[in-house]
Amino acid sequence: MGNIPYKIILSEDEIPKYWYNMKAVMKEKPDPFLHPGTLKPCTADDLKPVFCSDLVDQELNQTDEHIEIPEEVRGFYKMYRPSPLVRAYCLEKALGTPAEIYYKFEGTNTSGSHKLNSAAAQVYYAKKQGLTSLTTETGAGQWGTALSMACAYYNIPLTVYMVKISSEQKPYRKAVIETYGGKVIPSPSTTTEIGKKILAENPGTGGSLGCAISEAIEVALKTDNCRYVLGSVLDHVLLHQSVIGIETKVACEKYDINPDIIIGCVGGGSNFGGLIAPFMGDKIKGKNNIRFIGVEPASCPSLTRGKYAYDFGDTGKTTPLMRMYTLGSGFMPSPNHAGGLRYHGASAVVSKLYHDGYFEACSVEQSKVFEAATLFARCEGTLPAPESSHAIRTAIDEALKCKESGEKKTILFGLTGTGYFDMSAYMSYNSGTMTDYIPTDEDLEKGFSTIPNISL
Amino acid sequence: MGNIPYKIILSEDEIPKYWYNMKAVMKEKPDPFLHPGTLKPCTADDLKPVFCSDLVDQELNQTDEHIEIPEEVRGFYKMYRPSPLVRAYCLEKALGTPAEIYYKFEGTNTSGSHKLNSAAAQVYYAKKQGLTSLTTETGAGQWGTALSMACAYYNIPLTVYMVKISSEQKPYRKAVIETYGGKVIPSPSTTTEIGKKILAENPGTGGSLGCAISEAIEVALKTDNCRYVLGSVLDHVLLHQSVIGIETKVACEKYDINPDIIIGCVGGGSNFGGLIAPFMGDKIKGKNNIRFIGVEPASCPSLTRGKYAYDFGDTGKTTPLMRMYTLGSGFMPSPNHAGGLRYHGASAVVSKLYHDGYFEACSVEQSKVFEAATLFARCEGTLPAPESSHAIRTAIDEALKCKESGEKKTILFGLTGTGYFDMSAYMSYNSGTMTDYIPTDEDLEKGFSTIPNISL
Repeated sequence: MGNIPYKIILSEDEIPKYWYNMKAVMKEKPDPFLHPGTLKPCTADDLKPVFCSDLVDQELNQTDEHIEIPEEVRGFYKMYRPSPLVRAYCLEKALGTPAEIYYKFEGTNTSGSHKLNSAAAQVYYAKKQGLTSLTTETGAGQWGTALSMACAYYNIPLTVYMVKISSEQKPYRKAVIETYGGKVIPSPSTTTEIGKKILAENPGTGGSLGCAISEAIEVALKTDNCRYVLGSVLDHVLLHQSVIGIETKVACEKYDINPDIIIGCVGGGSNFGGLIAPFMGDKIKGKNNIRFIGVEPASCPSLTRGKYAYDFGDTGKTTPLMRMYTLGSGFMPSPNHAGGLRYHGASAVVSKLYHDGYFEACSVEQSKVFEAATLFARCEGTLPAPESSHAIRTAIDEALKCKESGEKKTILFGLTGTGYFDMSAYMSYNSGTMTDYIPTDEDLEKGFSTIPNISL
Repeated sequence: MGNIPYKIILSEDEIPKYWYNMKAVMKEKPDPFLHPGTLKPCTADDLKPVFCSDLVDQELNQTDEHIEIPEEVRGFYKMYRPSPLVRAYCLEKALGTPAEIYYKFEGTNTSGSHKLNSAAAQVYYAKKQGLTSLTTETGAGQWGTALSMACAYYNIPLTVYMVKISSEQKPYRKAVIETYGGKVIPSPSTTTEIGKKILAENPGTGGSLGCAISEAIEVALKTDNCRYVLGSVLDHVLLHQSVIGIETKVACEKYDINPDIIIGCVGGGSNFGGLIAPFMGDKIKGKNNIRFIGVEPASCPSLTRGKYAYDFGDTGKTTPLMRMYTLGSGFMPSPNHAGGLRYHGASAVVSKLYHDGYFEACSVEQSKVFEAATLFARCEGTLPAPESSHAIRTAIDEALKCKESGEKKTILFGLTGTGYFDMSAYMSYNSGTMTDYIPTDEDLEKGFSTIPNISL
């Protein structure tokens, strides 16, 4: 099996000392956030009542390619990083492909996903600022889990607005958050004005990320010394997640692995943005010609079927306006099991890169995703999260194309997490009762009608 | 923080090439298994209709201190081993103890526990023998998960008799086994004669490991080319689990760590036996004076309150008789959440070592265990399995003694797995409704009355 081990694990000394800021090298920068009241570009002062100050500075930083990781955060990272870069020898064999397949596996920590990379950083900055509580939202529960772990470590109280349908489908995920000391409130709830309004308009709704975000922001704004923290979409989250890509690049260089294709699932975009960051930086500089593929669910296809427009990040229309690929903040995704990908928009940086042709996107149907997930589990041992399995699906499809063409490509994908808390979805797949859902053009038009009309 | 990293991870080259067989160096050997019909010592021929042939040979091997790990099994181990030896810096700090605390963490594979170490070996030998199906039992579900992973890898059909109460408390654990292709039957069931008999006698029973074992053996015996595999108790399982202890010892030597105390939880005894194996070998040879502590639940106290006697391994009284610490095969443990420790007996090797004074045992109550588990989760990030948390409880207690005495001891414990599938137990603890259960002397007498009267 050559001299590539099954798992390439760097040493703790090789944990990156700097995050990678793609915006610094992008030829055209993403359009600025707009203040929802004035429609003028947001300033740091506009954002600091909602977000931690240091995070706002990172959010707006378009000049520094490398941003130092505080020593305390590197200390936290040492508890679970570097994460392994795994050669999928068994999957390659099962597929009979000449391709080499690698995956960067972010599920070896208890939170079970990459989300901890940004949680560790965000709570550190909150503590540094002297904040006394935080609010957030969670969909599938991975971000809530990661953040509650970080808040337990730094001893800061946390309130999590959890998408109602997820809190019902995943009571044990809720219990994990509570074990780490976080307070969980199913959203929409009656604890906020926006929650009450949404409940009045859609009494039976299972909620959405967009609506949970609105509630968490409302509480942060009306509570002293409290801020809201977000687990995806924003530029500073992508920045923190670049630790994934940097480690991957170091491991590739160490073992002379040259990826032809890099694949990641895209919800808000933080995993994908983090995985590709340093590789994309090189691509922009003309140093490589890697093919990047972002994979999204056919049920919530913001990149492949959305509009590139200014839109709100939340259902309550309280966030700044971001120019991104969006299905409209009023788009209500079907109760697809890949909760972490049920978001109407995508990161502004990822959207801009997509708009400018730096990567491809594709969408895949749920049943095909679970078919790939099950094959992967049986070959590679790891039971993948539904979100991550979107990337597995596309990696397998690319490897099968290599089998047909005889090409020996190197395919690398991000395995963002484990599926321990998604067993009801696996049960549905195992029993043959899983259905696919693809929004009709009419469904999409309904969502698009909620996009504000901002002239560019 | 000195030059000990958070996680000591050996390279794949350092995965042991040999398992360690404690029996070869024990001054007095464990008493032989007895055939349940003849009461004569079991021969290989007695055991081979039930177990894989190579495993029977390992079971009876009392002479070879080192037994080679087949290259194929080392290949499987590379998918998830070496496992990390973690310095619990954050827990030490939270306790304010001068002690150094380390844990060998076996939960980084999808099965979530150490059980995979023996599953990988046992299914390899089954495949080598040309078997076409396997049966087993599972309590908490960790063994069933591990075995279904290994069976998926080697492509051998598997039927799992799962303790009924566990299959009800942990539907998602059942779903994991099914995702890996295993067939799950809640035990006692109507698919076997012994299951029907137990159901007739105890219609409402939640089952037990002992009864699930009886059913799995019955099916193995009446099915062509099928064998039964067991995840604990037996000597060959301890042998495979010695990979835990060997890696730990190599890591300790590499970093000059000298444990004063080594702690493990004891159910059937495979984790504890595997963790201590090479250290105990040295102790028997007079090369160290390590204090070993086996920790069991107060609700199922086979070492601390059981009898050292010949007894059956299963409720149906079909297994060979083993001389071990036992509560009686008829002892019905309360529905304690630490399912993996709900076994009436303990490994013959572990029992003999205990009888001869080579280690200490203690028992701890469930609520104290979850208190320790929650503290550990919040400090160290990893959410521990209830079974593993018994060892955490005792490690913390020893570290607190060091705090009082000012001694800077080195405490090492086995963290056998994660608690992702035990969230209902955590929910019970979080909500304050968890109760403790300690069997009365009368309860124990009832169990003891089922121990056969074998003169020694």
